[in-house]
Amino acid sequence: MKVGVLLSGCGVFDGAEIHEATLTLYFLDKAGVEIVCMAPNIPQKEVINHLTGEKTNETRNVLVEAARIARGNIKDINEVSADDIDALIMPGGYGVAKNFSNFLEKGADADVIPEVKRLLVEMFEKKKPIGAVCISPVIVAAALKEAKVKLTIGTDEEVAKAIEAMGQQHLVCPVSEALVDEENKIVSTPAYMEGKTIKDVAEGIEKLVNEVLRLAKS
Amino acid sequence: MKVGVLLSGCGVFDGAEIHEATLTLYFLDKAGVEIVCMAPNIPQKEVINHLTGEKTNETRNVLVEAARIARGNIKDINEVSADDIDALIMPGGYGVAKNFSNFLEKGADADVIPEVKRLLVEMFEKKKPIGAVCISPVIVAAALKEAKVKLTIGTDEEVAKAIEAMGQQHLVCPVSEALVDEENKIVSTPAYMEGKTIKDVAEGIEKLVNEVLRLAKS
Repeated sequence: MKVGVLLSGCGVFDGAEIHEATLTLYFLDKAGVEIVCMAPNIPQKEVINHLTGEKTNETRNVLVEAARIARGNIKDINEVSADDIDALIMPGGYGVAKNFSNFLEKGADADVIPEVKRLLVEMFEKKKPIGAVCISPVIVAAALKEAKVKLTIGTDEEVAKAIEAMGQQHLVCPVSEALVDEENKIVSTPAYMEGKTIKDVAEGIEKLVNEVLRLAKS
Repeated sequence: MKVGVLLSGCGVFDGAEIHEATLTLYFLDKAGVEIVCMAPNIPQKEVINHLTGEKTNETRNVLVEAARIARGNIKDINEVSADDIDALIMPGGYGVAKNFSNFLEKGADADVIPEVKRLLVEMFEKKKPIGAVCISPVIVAAALKEAKVKLTIGTDEEVAKAIEAMGQQHLVCPVSEALVDEENKIVSTPAYMEGKTIKDVAEGIEKLVNEVLRLAKS
């Protein structure tokens, strides 16, 4: 079995959340599946100094930075089709919202970049499982508008409202759990949307990985 | 109990190895200890494009990049003394060799940068445990010259010879294990010096974390 892991950079404030991404790789590897890391070959929306929290004048590329998490073993998402993988998992981080969409500006009217939307729609249409961690359910909601899929980002009411306005169903879920939409084969977990420390986040991500793999086999 | 985690940047080829660093944080958090991430506030020796493996013209700062792994919760190593922590763990990555020393140029004659050497010597003199992952035992060996401590970097004969030439004892160890020098309270594990995938690396790092915590309590 091959599972895609879609990364949005490297670092919580402008890219993929590193703990969520690494734990996803860890639990997938423990389960013995082949991992296909991928990212879009596009500039980051911005570069944040993670020590100060301030925006810098630097420019960085999402695929090049995501390669840090993947230890160089990563593909351009444009080279990956839903036929190549049995499931897809998207770790969180602000990079998901910032680099994959205009959610922070547009809210419920957000668009997803074509590179990411294409693969998410393909996976959904082929009934292959999608796992969405942390803020990633927003991207799934925006890519699959009006699909009435069940998603969670934890308890954040504003983001939950946006997900509902995109034509999906939002359900509250604790950080230690993963919410499963059996019919649509979509699994989500709040991770750092709710979790205080890495062990909390790991608990939900381990469940998400296991549910995604169960759905991929069913 | 407080455990320091010493980071050398963010990314295997020019900084801290992200999986090793994240797994160290995960197993420490699971054990319920307080974590103090730290890094020196110095420029990286170089910046490597992790997609191509090539050196770039960029400049990055070790503390600022390490803050990506620590989600912004990180200290300048100059602000941390051995009195503040009960143990210190150093994940691996080329950043350890490149940013903390001149080991790649000087081999057994390598020097460790004063910021890192100071804390390692303090920990050793106060008999507080040090955990060294992957290539990090080289830095411990160089900082504690002629201390006759037991270390492993796995099976790499050239690096093992350099460690012996620094006046330490090198022992072969598989990736799934951690080597413990009980007397000197130093624990090491080969991680990606030997491991093929993240689950292998995790096995040794989990043991290293648990041995470091046992020694810190003893």
